[in-house]
Formats: sequence, structure tokens, C-alpha cells
Amino acid sequence: MSDTKLVTACVLLIGDEILSGRTRDSNLGYIATHLNRIGVQVREARVIPDIEETIVATLNEVRARYDYVFTTGGIGPTHDDITADAVAKAFGVGIDYHPEAVKLLGDHYAATGGEFTKARMRMARLPEGATMIENPLSKAPGFQIGNVFVMAGVPMVMQVMLDSLTGRLKGGAAMQSRTVTAQIGEGTIAEKLGDLQARHPDVGIGSYPYYKGKVFGTSIVMRAVDSTELDIVAGEVAEMMRGFGVEPAIGDPTS
Amino acid sequence: MSDTKLVTACVLLIGDEILSGRTRDSNLGYIATHLNRIGVQVREARVIPDIEETIVATLNEVRARYDYVFTTGGIGPTHDDITADAVAKAFGVGIDYHPEAVKLLGDHYAATGGEFTKARMRMARLPEGATMIENPLSKAPGFQIGNVFVMAGVPMVMQVMLDSLTGRLKGGAAMQSRTVTAQIGEGTIAEKLGDLQARHPDVGIGSYPYYKGKVFGTSIVMRAVDSTELDIVAGEVAEMMRGFGVEPAIGDPTS
Repeated sequence: MSDTKLVTACVLLIGDEILSGRTRDSNLGYIATHLNRIGVQVREARVIPDIEETIVATLNEVRARYDYVFTTGGIGPTHDDITADAVAKAFGVGIDYHPEAVKLLGDHYAATGGEFTKARMRMARLPEGATMIENPLSKAPGFQIGNVFVMAGVPMVMQVMLDSLTGRLKGGAAMQSRTVTAQIGEGTIAEKLGDLQARHPDVGIGSYPYYKGKVFGTSIVMRAVDSTELDIVAGEVAEMMRGFGVEPAIGDPTS
Repeated sequence: MSDTKLVTACVLLIGDEILSGRTRDSNLGYIATHLNRIGVQVREARVIPDIEETIVATLNEVRARYDYVFTTGGIGPTHDDITADAVAKAFGVGIDYHPEAVKLLGDHYAATGGEFTKARMRMARLPEGATMIENPLSKAPGFQIGNVFVMAGVPMVMQVMLDSLTGRLKGGAAMQSRTVTAQIGEGTIAEKLGDLQARHPDVGIGSYPYYKGKVFGTSIVMRAVDSTELDIVAGEVAEMMRGFGVEPAIGDPTS
């Protein structure tokens, strides 16, 4: 993957609790921001339930379409943790206790005084050919198989797993961004903004209105690989806003 | 749709800003909770970028698979608001100014002193055969076509649109839930919990570990249509936890 090629990813959030509205996902934003920094663009995300055939079909569809797939959820010790089995099935391989993972977990429970139950031992089962993703926090590992990275759903654990992937992921062209914000309705600048987009097809220009009490405005977010062109476009957006009598801010008051 | 049939839905969150990590979505949880209350189960959600062919292909896939599809995002006045055009294309129909929507918006801008620009007039374009979804907040309507409901991405606006759908959505069997929580590791109860699930296949039993500083525990969430069976299972879970020497709480300290 060269520096000018875009490297793409899909995130699969696996878990009934997100679809029922019980849990609000925070993993997607964290993963997207982390990957963006190393030159990997998340192009799609899906939230799917803990149903084996759904996980298998979805995984096989997206792992063929994107450079990387990252999953969260379903790798704990209980009966509803079926992600590892589903991933093995999707790859058409077996699943078994991974000696290194068994030792890691055994040592961990011996040290902390917890019982190494048969249920907990399930967390040491990895698909054939998978390599572990280290989990310094609670030891039970994630794993990588092919271009698929299987991580925990608990945000703290997911985050240390993502950190431990440093060096294993190969990014492409890094996407740069600029934000120009002003207290102006997006309907006012929409036409000129559309013209600007037409003149700079390589820069993605997004328009995001915000409301904060009685204050409203619009953030224009520009994204591109080429920072020189990005600065030119950001300058034009700022100039356009001044033309409407408002002073823009660089940065992002809505985030 | 009878009372015993499950009515299913898919949510499509349309917008580059969620995939880049810039904006953390709050619409999915709101929609899921709202629909759940009226007997509609969200079975899948996807986050997709503002790319026409992606929106068209995704929409045609999911509208055939689920009873309802709800989309958020991409119906504003700027060049990156392409959802209405993409939906029209997915349904193979034209798109044009909807007289009632034009009047609504014209009156709104006349009353508030805003200019009714050509860009803002774009928000009155609806696919042929679509019916408006009312937006009491900022007037620009969403719309329904077939089993697809197209709503705004700004949470406050999406929420009033969802409210104005009351009576238009037909729910099925309402899913009930119970939560039993205790300070116990999920690995400790996993085996007995698996047995319980095997004995009650009609009750979905989810196990969700939580960490709060040095306190950790597990919430068991049970979901089913039949509340009698649900109460029996919840009682067994509570009894099981007492068997491990911890007193469970009914309710949910992690939400």
C-alpha cells in the first residue's frame, strides 16, 4: 500500500444491547479517530445482533470489500458471546483453545485469586490461524485473522487492544482536515459552497449546522490528502463567510 | 401485522461526519428506544457515507429485508445533502418540488425574515409518491416513501419528526425487558446462565459486565414478548446470584 492509496476499513459493532437502545456506543468514534490518525479511513459501520448467521454473512461481505475490518463485542465468557465461533465459521476454519491464551488467563486468575472456570476458559478459544491481540487490562485477548481484528466491546478494553495493534496496521494516505465555523445559516452559504465543491472535487466539503440554545451556526469541515489544496479551500470558505458579514473561527466549537 | 408477529426495522445513519469520528451519533439509541416502546425491533443499523451509489444500494438491500427503514441525515440545503435524490433513485422515481413543502418553507422564511434561497428551496424537493413527515421545529420536512422514513440528522429535529410519526407506524408484539444486576464477575455465573438460556429459548438473555472505578459487576438483561416467562427467568437469575452470596438489584445502575 503506497502513500497515495487510500486504505479503507469497516467497523462491526456486535451486540443486541446497542440495537435495543440500552447501551450507547462509544467505540465507533474512538476507532474512527484512532484509525484516521494512522491513515486508515472508516468507510462503513454496522451494528448487528448476537446472531451467528448474521455475523458470518456480514463479516464475509465486508472483509471482501474493505482493507480492514474491526469488530467489537461478543468475546466474553457467557453463552451470548459467540463472536469468536462466528468468525471461525466465516473463515471456514476450526476453533480451539490457544495454548498461550490459556496460560495468560490461567496465570491471571491464579494471581488475582479468581476461579479459572470453564466459562472463563472459553475466552482462550481462538480460530485456527488467528494471532492474539494483547489485552493488558483484563488479559483475555482479542485476535486477528486475515484482515479482521476482533476486539472486546467494553470501551476501556477495546482501547488497550487497539493500542496494542500499533505497528501491525499499515495506513495509506493520511486524510487531513480543516474546520471553519461561523454563526451563519447553512442555507445562506449553500450555493457558493456548492460552487466551491464543484471546483475542488478532491476535497470533501461537509456542512454541519448546529444549534446551541439560541445560537446557531454552521461548521464547514474539509477533508483531503493534499494539505496545500485544503488550505486554499479553507481560505476561500473563510473569505466567503466574511462576504456575508460574519467572522469565521478556525477550530470546532461544536465538538 | 398481528400482536404476536415481530415487526422489524433497520436504521441507516447517513453522514461522513460519523464515520470520521467527528460526530458521535446519538440518534440510533433514541430511535431504538422509541421504536421499542411501540413494538418495533431495530435489528440492524448501518453508518454509511454521503455517496449516492452507496445510499441507493444499501437502501434497496435493507428495505426488502425489514418491515421499516429509518434514515437520518443528508436532507439539508447544501451540496452534500443528497439523501432525497438517492432515495428517489433507489425507488426508481423522479424528484420534484412538493407544493405543500414549498409553501411551508416559504411561509417560515417570510415569518422569520430569512431569505428563501434556491438552496433552501432544495429542502422542499420530495421523491414522487412520498408523503411529508412534519417538522414543527425548523419546518423543512422529512418524508415517507414505501416503508422508508427519511429524517434529519440534527438530533432535536429528528426527534420531533419521530414524534410526528405517531399513529403512522404499526408495531407488533412489544418486547418486555427485565434487568438483574449484582457485583459479581460474569465468568462466575456464566455456566449456570448458559443452562438457564438453554431452558428458556424464547427469552433473550444478555450478560453485560461493567467497571466503575474499582467496582465491577454484571447486568443480566432479559428480553421477551411473554412477561410471565420473563418474570420466572428474572427470578431464577436473582436466585442464582444469591447462591453465589451476592444480593442482586432489579434495575440498571450502568445506564
